[in-house]
Amino acid sequence: MSRFAGKTLEHLTPYTPGEQPRDMQYIKLNTNESPFPPSGKAQTAAAEAGARLQLYPDPTCRALHEAFAASVGVSPDCVLATNGSDEILNFAFMAFCDESTPAAFADITYGFYEVFAELNRVPYRKIPLNADFTLPIEEFCKNDATLFIANPNAPTGIALSREEIERILQANPDRLVLIDEAYVDFGGESCIPLIKKYDNLLVTQTFSKSRSMAGARLGFGVASPALIADLNTIKYSTNPYNINSMTMAAGLGVLADEEYTRANCRTVIENRDYLTAALEEFGFLVLPSRTNFIFARHPRISGEEMYRRLRESGILVRHFTAPRIADFNRITVGARADMETLVKTVQKILEETT
Amino acid sequence: MSRFAGKTLEHLTPYTPGEQPRDMQYIKLNTNESPFPPSGKAQTAAAEAGARLQLYPDPTCRALHEAFAASVGVSPDCVLATNGSDEILNFAFMAFCDESTPAAFADITYGFYEVFAELNRVPYRKIPLNADFTLPIEEFCKNDATLFIANPNAPTGIALSREEIERILQANPDRLVLIDEAYVDFGGESCIPLIKKYDNLLVTQTFSKSRSMAGARLGFGVASPALIADLNTIKYSTNPYNINSMTMAAGLGVLADEEYTRANCRTVIENRDYLTAALEEFGFLVLPSRTNFIFARHPRISGEEMYRRLRESGILVRHFTAPRIADFNRITVGARADMETLVKTVQKILEETT
Repeated sequence: MSRFAGKTLEHLTPYTPGEQPRDMQYIKLNTNESPFPPSGKAQTAAAEAGARLQLYPDPTCRALHEAFAASVGVSPDCVLATNGSDEILNFAFMAFCDESTPAAFADITYGFYEVFAELNRVPYRKIPLNADFTLPIEEFCKNDATLFIANPNAPTGIALSREEIERILQANPDRLVLIDEAYVDFGGESCIPLIKKYDNLLVTQTFSKSRSMAGARLGFGVASPALIADLNTIKYSTNPYNINSMTMAAGLGVLADEEYTRANCRTVIENRDYLTAALEEFGFLVLPSRTNFIFARHPRISGEEMYRRLRESGILVRHFTAPRIADFNRITVGARADMETLVKTVQKILEETT
Repeated sequence: MSRFAGKTLEHLTPYTPGEQPRDMQYIKLNTNESPFPPSGKAQTAAAEAGARLQLYPDPTCRALHEAFAASVGVSPDCVLATNGSDEILNFAFMAFCDESTPAAFADITYGFYEVFAELNRVPYRKIPLNADFTLPIEEFCKNDATLFIANPNAPTGIALSREEIERILQANPDRLVLIDEAYVDFGGESCIPLIKKYDNLLVTQTFSKSRSMAGARLGFGVASPALIADLNTIKYSTNPYNINSMTMAAGLGVLADEEYTRANCRTVIENRDYLTAALEEFGFLVLPSRTNFIFARHPRISGEEMYRRLRESGILVRHFTAPRIADFNRITVGARADMETLVKTVQKILEETT
């Protein structure tokens, strides 16, 4: 820290993004990117917007909000676009937590929740997942905190049903419940239809995964107009032009190409089934995934060793050092050819370490 | 506010961006946009990046940091790119102010400083500009606060010299001094060369004005490596992928086309001289501008009336209601044809209101 650093910096441990090494070409299965290029409609629209960059983007994101709202069946005043879904998550911490309104989330979940709590100096509690890595619903029902729930969860891949989320919403009528649906398009059940029924529900989504737009940075919050108005107050006090024109155009483009997104999700699910079956065949425990990644451990090889050996073979996966999950690796479900290379490589590693 | 709103929302009055009306086609001279399209190199590079959106952008912004650092003559570890310069300004409030480290800035300056102070719950003091709207340098030399100085200032357009900034830096060795150079390319003197000499200096710039990239959202902070490290801690705790791939590529493209930027700045300065002379001919007081806008008042017509009549004639300018400047309007310097239309329209308004 410099000698000018204020109190916010004192205890801050920033988030660590997945590694992006430059020493050689890897099969990148470490950041849950899509193996498919963005929709051609997204590319064309973004390039057209690139010719008019001298003008500010529309801070109200009107056209984009209307298109996304239509695609998820809500009205536009129930929607807010952000610079990736990390931004809407941070906005939620800023808007709906404070010194006396703590946050709570699972001990094993998206690592940024804890960073946002620290950044905003919000007290927080981590609720341990069950031994099988499912979410302890009863624990989330007896909390006096703003709740952050990734559904499906990361890095486990395990999903709650909409009915289970509803129990949590009903048990916390006076606390905001944020459901982070970054991975919902790969077989999860979205809670967006519940926003009309529960004024304490905020659902977030991202175009980084199923929409092949991680490079564009586009996320969304969906909630009652009152919650969206609060989040807009944060947005207009933080960065009114948070979405650039090219990303806005690309978002409109991909929303006009829904069949492309659906087909890509189907392929990812097929490849996930293939990868899961192959790894189970080798003796791996693979948690039941509703996402574009799997979380797997082998009884005989530590997570760290498997990560290291795969890396030496040119395949990057994500390894976390937290004790409960150090035996696992999170592996992005990519193109079929890459999955086949991965399976062969894992087989070779297992043979070498008998 | 919703019933879930926390303390941050309690006293927050968001920034109001310049209006973007849809009722008719206006000559837009209200948001200081460039009249020139973005560099062709920026457009091409952005479109190419649009084909690879399935991948996350490089969170370290390595190539962009290197290119910008080279263009301003510093090393890459002295540079941080952000999602518009609003983001680097907010990062500075987060990193270098807190409950016991207040902020100070001019009473008439960029309106977002006050919003950021409120957002981050930082105490702040507004230092009144002199009667002629110049900055009271002595007042900024006897402060115990993190200082935010727009140079040239907005909406006045008036610039301090590098020597005057140096006096402020020397008088505040233990407080960070942020120099916001959003408009510096139109005749101001950048303080970037001072970062090696003063460890308390943070300079911010934007590609929204001189680089014709308001739609891309790209700003920069330039400071000692220690200050940049603090700002990186904030970035990696807020939004590690804050710059999307297309904007990063466009930034690299425009940096490879410096003569285009310089030529556009020269044209804006010529058009500013033309506009200033014409309005002075009509009896306007035009503050001496080093920016791509002028700030002007007429002795006979209120700022609000001039704004309204121009709007009725299809020309948008920016009017602020703060008492000290309510007689003025801020007028973006645009293309020569638009300046000529503006001059004719002002002449007509003056004739009608004799």
